[in-house]
Amino acid sequence: MKNQFKEIPGSIVAPIGFLASGVFCDIKKLGTGKGSNKGQKRDLALIVSETPATVAGMFTTNQVCAAPVKVCVERAKKGKAQVVVVNSGNANACTGKQGMADARAMVAFTEKTLALSAGRALVGSTGRIGVTMPMDNIRAGILEAAMELGTSAAHADSATEAIMTSDTKPKQIAVEFKLGGKTVRIGGICKGAGMIQPGMSATGARPAALPHGGLHATMLGFITTDAAVEKKVLQSALQEAVAQSFNRITVDGDMSTNDTVLVLANGLAGNKPLTQKNPEFKNFQAALSHVCLELAKKIVRDGEGVHRVVTVRVNGAKTIQDADAAARAVANSALVKTSWHGGDPNWGRIIDAIGYSQATVVEEKIDIGYSAPRSNKILWSLKRGQPTKATFKQLCTAVEPKEFELHIQLNLGKASAVMYAADLTEEYVDFNKGDVTDASSLGG
Amino acid sequence: MKNQFKEIPGSIVAPIGFLASGVFCDIKKLGTGKGSNKGQKRDLALIVSETPATVAGMFTTNQVCAAPVKVCVERAKKGKAQVVVVNSGNANACTGKQGMADARAMVAFTEKTLALSAGRALVGSTGRIGVTMPMDNIRAGILEAAMELGTSAAHADSATEAIMTSDTKPKQIAVEFKLGGKTVRIGGICKGAGMIQPGMSATGARPAALPHGGLHATMLGFITTDAAVEKKVLQSALQEAVAQSFNRITVDGDMSTNDTVLVLANGLAGNKPLTQKNPEFKNFQAALSHVCLELAKKIVRDGEGVHRVVTVRVNGAKTIQDADAAARAVANSALVKTSWHGGDPNWGRIIDAIGYSQATVVEEKIDIGYSAPRSNKILWSLKRGQPTKATFKQLCTAVEPKEFELHIQLNLGKASAVMYAADLTEEYVDFNKGDVTDASSLGG
Repeated sequence: MKNQFKEIPGSIVAPIGFLASGVFCDIKKLGTGKGSNKGQKRDLALIVSETPATVAGMFTTNQVCAAPVKVCVERAKKGKAQVVVVNSGNANACTGKQGMADARAMVAFTEKTLALSAGRALVGSTGRIGVTMPMDNIRAGILEAAMELGTSAAHADSATEAIMTSDTKPKQIAVEFKLGGKTVRIGGICKGAGMIQPGMSATGARPAALPHGGLHATMLGFITTDAAVEKKVLQSALQEAVAQSFNRITVDGDMSTNDTVLVLANGLAGNKPLTQKNPEFKNFQAALSHVCLELAKKIVRDGEGVHRVVTVRVNGAKTIQDADAAARAVANSALVKTSWHGGDPNWGRIIDAIGYSQATVVEEKIDIGYSAPRSNKILWSLKRGQPTKATFKQLCTAVEPKEFELHIQLNLGKASAVMYAADLTEEYVDFNKGDVTDASSLGG
Repeated sequence: MKNQFKEIPGSIVAPIGFLASGVFCDIKKLGTGKGSNKGQKRDLALIVSETPATVAGMFTTNQVCAAPVKVCVERAKKGKAQVVVVNSGNANACTGKQGMADARAMVAFTEKTLALSAGRALVGSTGRIGVTMPMDNIRAGILEAAMELGTSAAHADSATEAIMTSDTKPKQIAVEFKLGGKTVRIGGICKGAGMIQPGMSATGARPAALPHGGLHATMLGFITTDAAVEKKVLQSALQEAVAQSFNRITVDGDMSTNDTVLVLANGLAGNKPLTQKNPEFKNFQAALSHVCLELAKKIVRDGEGVHRVVTVRVNGAKTIQDADAAARAVANSALVKTSWHGGDPNWGRIIDAIGYSQATVVEEKIDIGYSAPRSNKILWSLKRGQPTKATFKQLCTAVEPKEFELHIQLNLGKASAVMYAADLTEEYVDFNKGDVTDASSLGG
């Protein structure tokens, strides 16, 4: 299917009727002065729809789950929202009853500030674990952010900066396409660089089908659209999009306590509310999936210390669970990831990881090969469990680029899975071993 | 129970009637001259019993399984063996039919050289994956090793050196105790430093109860005893010992294609063959478990790039599977392991890993604390999901030593599990990213 959408600028403010802002309110209590953005990374964002929007969400399945996630799970069920308040610098996780009270205070204060009905605000947090929220700073930040709301690309940039933690690059995208004869837009921003292997579900509960694995360094994603979409349709489309994007990335195999993706659909484009039976649903799904996948890939590329990004494609598995298990085992193997870092086509480590995964595999049937991104020209290093005639030099050349695809054919069935994975570098270790001269490294 | 055994020198040749040797036969084909030990690490070992011995074994559950493992699984079932031939430098894994033929040729040639009946030899290999064995060098090595067999500690040292790969230290132990009025001995050697998270079973098949996880950088363990022990009793004792030792260590979470532990019991101490009903069985079990655990810990301490070793103790889980899942998630989390390296008491990452594990946990019930090795004096950082009054400085002091214990109390039940884990360092990454100027890094 040819994509029916094109990319446009503006990310979350590209859709009609959305405003954004990002300010510095000193959530880490650096003591450098509240209210001033000068020289400080922003740390609080507002994303606002002019009218109540249909909402859908996907949330971490980690049993240790941050207060803002609990509040969002509750509120997303109700189906309508108008604003998301997001802070970086503090995850509001493992903060007990105080943390729940603070998350509720954040949404209440945001609603009051923007003169919205109760229940219209959602909340996201990322940063340190186990430290209570600096609520005075938060309130000051919300007041300032409300005054700074706007619809320019610069406003989206400010909001994007405000949600970043160890990210080195902002992550934004927007697309435009036709729906029911109207032009509609979907925009999104996200953050995340470490503690990244999301496994989100619609309620934060673990579906039986959810792959074993983890999510972590918190990823947050916020998506806006001016398309009119029925609540159930929006949730189902987001679920499908996340399953093929954010839930298929890994930087370090750790699943966070805070992973959240929210989508707000305000309907201001004026199309007839989209139903699943509508033949144009697939266009909406394709556009939303594209937004999520591009944002997810940006997270892997900007992962902590990452030098190389590898798309791990497992084909020919007996079941989807098997394909997923094999892909995750390879994508999370310390030995495979270090060999990617070294530009080493070490198929021995790859077949080893496939073998110890929970997938049913037969050594004598496994093929392993490499290609350029989105290329079908595969250089096979292993066929039916045996080395091919490809030379070591040829294989090294195949794994030299900053991005390449790893193809694993199990030759046992028809199921497939893909993982977007990062290498493991000395910089990752150095970054995460922390600086114990600073108590702020306590917690996540 | 007070231990009834004492440690003695000599490792595998401490028990009566065992001989060992280790030679250099240039298995990596460095071309530096066969037959000379001068300046080269030995790479082929023989461990021989003067009389046929009862044998028991535990083998990798990796579905990609090396030829020597397949040969040993077959032969260990028969219950008697007299010699183990082991090489380093080549794992004989992913070598197809030629690999099986070579493994069979290794045991046959060893039996012929030592004038033993067919079926009396076992074989172990560790090293590169996907490269066929240099059989001329192997045969020359077996001939030389047979001539060099002896019962001195120096002979055990040579054999220990010959099985090492990325190990920086030899790993040996022996104990002596009384059984049926006779003095008996158990000795053992092992190797392993990376690709280490063994998950072995008696047949190489996966028992349903086997924890998800992996094994890798191959660990090999060879144990000798002059105790007389019935085959079934020996297998059951080994299974229990391995379950609490080699199967509970992780360096990097990768399970190897070659992990093997073998025990040979030749009965020359003259005790009445040990049965499970014998009240002294528990003494034998305790001694064998001690040998396996001490060897397993040596692997973690000598793990690739390892700076700190952490004993992860999970208590109060609903089931043993839950306790195991929580312990493995923490022990294999990249973020937890890098924080250990940094001397950072980052309980946020620990509770995060507990939360995304397959274990059932309740955030508000989790306690996390630290102690010195084998101490009950625990400094708690988290109680019932909330930070304690312990200061950051106190917690840093607790995680500063080269070895410490991490205590996780889930407060949900009575099941426990322990993992012996390593930190993750820049040196590990640097060591494993490989040297792609050298084709010998291809494979494992």
